[in-house]
Amino acid sequence: MKVAVLGATGAVGRVMLAVLEERLGEVEEVAPLASAASAGATVPWRGRDWTVAPPDAGSFRDCALALFSAGAAVSRAWAEAAVAEGAVVVDNSSAWRMDAQVPLVVPEVNGERIRERPKGIIANPNCSTIQAVLPLEALHDAFGLRRVVYTTYQSASGAGEQGLRALERELEGFRGGASPFPTVLAGNVIPSVGAQADGGWTEEEDKMRAETRKILEIPDLPVAATCARVPVAVGHSVAVTVEIERPVTRAEAVAAIGAQQGLTLEERPHGPLAREAAGSDAVRVGRIRVDRDRPDTLHFWVVADNLRKGAALNAVQIAERVLAESGVAA
Amino acid sequence: MKVAVLGATGAVGRVMLAVLEERLGEVEEVAPLASAASAGATVPWRGRDWTVAPPDAGSFRDCALALFSAGAAVSRAWAEAAVAEGAVVVDNSSAWRMDAQVPLVVPEVNGERIRERPKGIIANPNCSTIQAVLPLEALHDAFGLRRVVYTTYQSASGAGEQGLRALERELEGFRGGASPFPTVLAGNVIPSVGAQADGGWTEEEDKMRAETRKILEIPDLPVAATCARVPVAVGHSVAVTVEIERPVTRAEAVAAIGAQQGLTLEERPHGPLAREAAGSDAVRVGRIRVDRDRPDTLHFWVVADNLRKGAALNAVQIAERVLAESGVAA
Repeated sequence: MKVAVLGATGAVGRVMLAVLEERLGEVEEVAPLASAASAGATVPWRGRDWTVAPPDAGSFRDCALALFSAGAAVSRAWAEAAVAEGAVVVDNSSAWRMDAQVPLVVPEVNGERIRERPKGIIANPNCSTIQAVLPLEALHDAFGLRRVVYTTYQSASGAGEQGLRALERELEGFRGGASPFPTVLAGNVIPSVGAQADGGWTEEEDKMRAETRKILEIPDLPVAATCARVPVAVGHSVAVTVEIERPVTRAEAVAAIGAQQGLTLEERPHGPLAREAAGSDAVRVGRIRVDRDRPDTLHFWVVADNLRKGAALNAVQIAERVLAESGVAA
Repeated sequence: MKVAVLGATGAVGRVMLAVLEERLGEVEEVAPLASAASAGATVPWRGRDWTVAPPDAGSFRDCALALFSAGAAVSRAWAEAAVAEGAVVVDNSSAWRMDAQVPLVVPEVNGERIRERPKGIIANPNCSTIQAVLPLEALHDAFGLRRVVYTTYQSASGAGEQGLRALERELEGFRGGASPFPTVLAGNVIPSVGAQADGGWTEEEDKMRAETRKILEIPDLPVAATCARVPVAVGHSVAVTVEIERPVTRAEAVAAIGAQQGLTLEERPHGPLAREAAGSDAVRVGRIRVDRDRPDTLHFWVVADNLRKGAALNAVQIAERVLAESGVAA
């Protein structure tokens, strides 16, 4: 079995190759694809070097799956072609997420949605959204959600390889060079992630609202996000405030969240750390508190590796599920 | 005129001396006080070196004012003695803040409260609270507050000189040495500031709730804070979500906040930056947004230098007001 990885030389693409190697024993061949700038480079996978090519007609032939992580414009340009050549596309960009004919999937939350994919495309959600919807799904099942407020602490790698390198250079004392950030990130907090949208909001904040509603299947859920970038290499943290339909105790909230598949409770005093998220598959939830004034409101903290569960791991988990389902169908 | 500065060698104490020098021309002498460990050291002030002494009986004699920033235990031990020796105490610790006989003052919000000080002590609020209550006061005046949710991005210097030095060492690649943090802060987000309180809350979070209510004089205002430490040297950022009594437009919210004395609107796309707060007296507010689903809810971002407006500057502004009032009375 062969799998194409489009964006194979990027921060997420490299992790996709690593996670494929770790988890999908049945994959025998990869087709690493990237922009012309990376053509001819090689990427290591299963002890061999694989030559990177730009995507072209025929690139996806013989591929059961194509994992895309090369930005929305590239996804729009190549996803339908890949499907036409026979691949199921799992797309990590925002290009297809809000398309009604494309399921938006976090396997532990709505994995069954992968079956309905009339376009042959399954979308991987925004990194911060993936980690946050795991505890939210549990709270919705247990108590019913009435409102969500997100405040994020997003790492440099959320802006890809270039973001990671820009922060590294800054921390080493170098200035200048390409950076995806509007200003120096080292020693700073930049309260803005992604392009501007209307009303003072950013596209990142609007994505978190729209995607949370779609994944949880609560189309009118009030959701507001404030997204900020912090000088962390890998690992997003999200502070979540949730209004639910009835007052609860802390023990009830902890039990409900703890019952959710795909997350780890980390109820030590200082909470789950961004630094420990890096390289880990876990979504860690801690600092679970009942509001002192409004016992129908909970506050908690969620961290995950934005390159793994926030991107590559979730995409590969979707791919695993596609393969498992097609195995059943065969 | 002579002013005692207790905690003169700490992160806030050094800034207190600098701000006194900048702003209070009528002060001719300082009495720098600190723990026995710093005794005999000197601090520069108005071109002279002043010898640091431990506080003792008589330390506050002839002092019109005593600015305290040496922690709650030292404040409890020395504040009443300083008052007995004739000084008005402006205390930066949490020791006296919630005492009903001690005003808790942000001069632009409730400066008139300094007049009623039956104990001779005026308390300086928690750093994050000071910067956040400026826009909140404006919103309360204009629309009425119904609920506040804070999420903080607090800098290393909020934990004093030791915090600042620990982060510096970590960023230079050294491990070990004294640190006030429960784990490495460089490259990390630590979702916990201060000691543990009950229900999973921290004392810092409880301080923000209690102090906001006292300063704004809304004793039953629902306030919840989630406090986190980020790898920034100086400059706290706070994301604030506020429910008000009626739906508003963004223009109305911006106009109301912009009318508040003591803050600067910074409505550029990427918002006010922690890095630019350091060394500045301004409280900068930006990213003002009306909730897309609940137009009676506003979201905004506030940054300030936690050592200046968050501590030393606010204390010296209180001192200025005490001197101005006593001048009027004389």
